Amino acid sequence: MRKLTMQELNRKSVQEFKVSGKLPVVVVLDNIRSMHNVGSVFRTADAFLMQELILCGYTPQPPHRDIHKTALGATETVDWKYISETVNAVHELKKKGFRVFAVEQVEGSIPLHLLDAIEQPIAVIFGNEVNGVDEQVLQHCDGSIEIPQSGMKHSLNIAVAAGIVLWELVRNRISK
Amino acid sequence: MRKLTMQELNRKSVQEFKVSGKLPVVVVLDNIRSMHNVGSVFRTADAFLMQELILCGYTPQPPHRDIHKTALGATETVDWKYISETVNAVHELKKKGFRVFAVEQVEGSIPLHLLDAIEQPIAVIFGNEVNGVDEQVLQHCDGSIEIPQSGMKHSLNIAVAAGIVLWELVRNRISK
Repeated sequence: MRKLTMQELNRKSVQEFKVSGKLPVVVVLDNIRSMHNVGSVFRTADAFLMQELILCGYTPQPPHRDIHKTALGATETVDWKYISETVNAVHELKKKGFRVFAVEQVEGSIPLHLLDAIEQPIAVIFGNEVNGVDEQVLQHCDGSIEIPQSGMKHSLNIAVAAGIVLWELVRNRISK
Repeated sequence: MRKLTMQELNRKSVQEFKVSGKLPVVVVLDNIRSMHNVGSVFRTADAFLMQELILCGYTPQPPHRDIHKTALGATETVDWKYISETVNAVHELKKKGFRVFAVEQVEGSIPLHLLDAIEQPIAVIFGNEVNGVDEQVLQHCDGSIEIPQSGMKHSLNIAVAAGIVLWELVRNRISK
């Protein structure tokens, strides 16, 4: 097996990224504490061509050295903005025609592998490392998505959970 | 929407985890540098009931405070062992009937969403943060798996990549 060369990988420049067609998916981070997690979500949003990242509450914002350490340049490609109140971000997205889902273990949530029933454009909200998506924010969402889990912890690192959910959305797009 | 209670989440105790049926999937970490990444893979392996984690080369091993910070107890549930040479881990897995795949961008790799064509038991190898899976190890694998990416970086954090690939294996199992 031969590893692909840089040229074969066909990586986009910042300029090429900006004009590329994006997946109609917006990622909302609700009071994420860790710079490492925020940077990692930027990197994933770059890899999967997400439309936008919205940072809310006390979620740290670029530029910051500790975000850059894990984002590795993706803060330059991915469109992002800051909205202090997560609920306002939800309302804005709904007005734009997005269906808004919290990624959270709540009653009646949609198991991730059945997400293809939901039409894009879609926005997905990931909550704080300890407390998850804020209760008040939950009440304004169209529904919630749950990653089926069966271990001792029943919780994934938020950057990992974001990777899994965004992959599922990419996957649904590729498969259609 | 109402968040599920601890009781409703039905989390397993360490003892219940140990005797639970596992997914016939082994995760191999080939010279991973970061404690944070190793801990995070443990946490994902717990959530998805992976059969075993094999740590190779200079991949850090538990117990270690910095692994525990992200593993959050999953080093107690997930079966793991250390094998210094990754190639020896590959041979051992093949002898046990596992098909062994590197997660790497190589010529002719299987796009992740087509992975359901591969029968489990399966082992997946994740390589070093900078250099990926070692060239010599690649030559001993049955094939490689690639996560389709289209951004500027064409690379995901290794803990995120592991989450995505392991979810896909869980997903294939749920869907069958």
